[in-house]
Amino acid sequence: MKFCSQCGGSLVQRIPDGDNRLRHVCTSCHAIHYQNPRIVAGCLPTWGEQVLLCRRAIHPRRGYWTLPAGFMENGETMEQAASRETLEEACARVRDLRLYTLFDLPHISQVYTFFLAELVDLDFSAGDESLEVRLFHEQEIPWAELAFPTVGRTLECYFADRVGQVFPVRNEPIAPLLAHYKKT
Amino acid sequence: MKFCSQCGGSLVQRIPDGDNRLRHVCTSCHAIHYQNPRIVAGCLPTWGEQVLLCRRAIHPRRGYWTLPAGFMENGETMEQAASRETLEEACARVRDLRLYTLFDLPHISQVYTFFLAELVDLDFSAGDESLEVRLFHEQEIPWAELAFPTVGRTLECYFADRVGQVFPVRNEPIAPLLAHYKKT
Repeated sequence: MKFCSQCGGSLVQRIPDGDNRLRHVCTSCHAIHYQNPRIVAGCLPTWGEQVLLCRRAIHPRRGYWTLPAGFMENGETMEQAASRETLEEACARVRDLRLYTLFDLPHISQVYTFFLAELVDLDFSAGDESLEVRLFHEQEIPWAELAFPTVGRTLECYFADRVGQVFPVRNEPIAPLLAHYKKT
Repeated sequence: MKFCSQCGGSLVQRIPDGDNRLRHVCTSCHAIHYQNPRIVAGCLPTWGEQVLLCRRAIHPRRGYWTLPAGFMENGETMEQAASRETLEEACARVRDLRLYTLFDLPHISQVYTFFLAELVDLDFSAGDESLEVRLFHEQEIPWAELAFPTVGRTLECYFADRVGQVFPVRNEPIAPLLAHYKKT
């Protein structure tokens, strides 16, 4: 971030009066440009005993399996974002969405959330960002080929919670990817 | 948003290839500038039967009562943001934070979340953004003088849930402020 998006002036980093953090401040119009964490929202779509995963057609982690998810847009709710991403990536319609996991990823300034949801029907297919979309039974999950720790942790919680049919909302931090994949 | 923060070039609004939304795109370096919802995080600090509220020293809603909360910063977790805001606005330390409410405010592109928390001690006072900080019993809550619907709804849920001592995480959308305050 080098230029002011309001006036085109040069930015410097300084701590504004009454603040305690470095911000990008315009040397010309003095606008302060804050940067804040972004929300990624997605679904864990289920069909009876099976769950739906997508194989990523895009970087990062191309070729790895993921739950449908993406950046929440202005003007929508988290649930709408999760539902929209499921439609875009898996061409799948879901219902009965329930907030389930919320992961803090402070090292990349993201909050990553998944909703439990039921597939409306079996009419799904790979969207533009997916190579393949399919249903998996628990014993078929490609644990070593999951794209992100948030996906693995959500599936892990789901299969554990499913035993007792109680699905409490979980909020946990997740360590940097490196710590998870250092052996691969 | 008029100028590119990377190169200072002029921005236009157009739908980039492979996208389906208008974005600010640089006519010079072609950078796409996404805008995403922001997270506000705060606490409902409790001390026995009482809850802590702050009277706002800043706009909007100056003079009205609120729970301590503010914009989540890059590099922190939601819980850290909630704890930090409680320290900044009420000079209060809290422990045992538990995620409690998450409100979608799509009309202002915010997600507003509160954690239940216990005050560590009674050593609290008004921070820079507060006129006054005090504890309230349920029957003392100034319902008509609360700053935001998210605050009122969180308190309402809390006093209802407290009866059975079960505090499920709640995710709800909240309508524009106008609908709540149209009579005032």
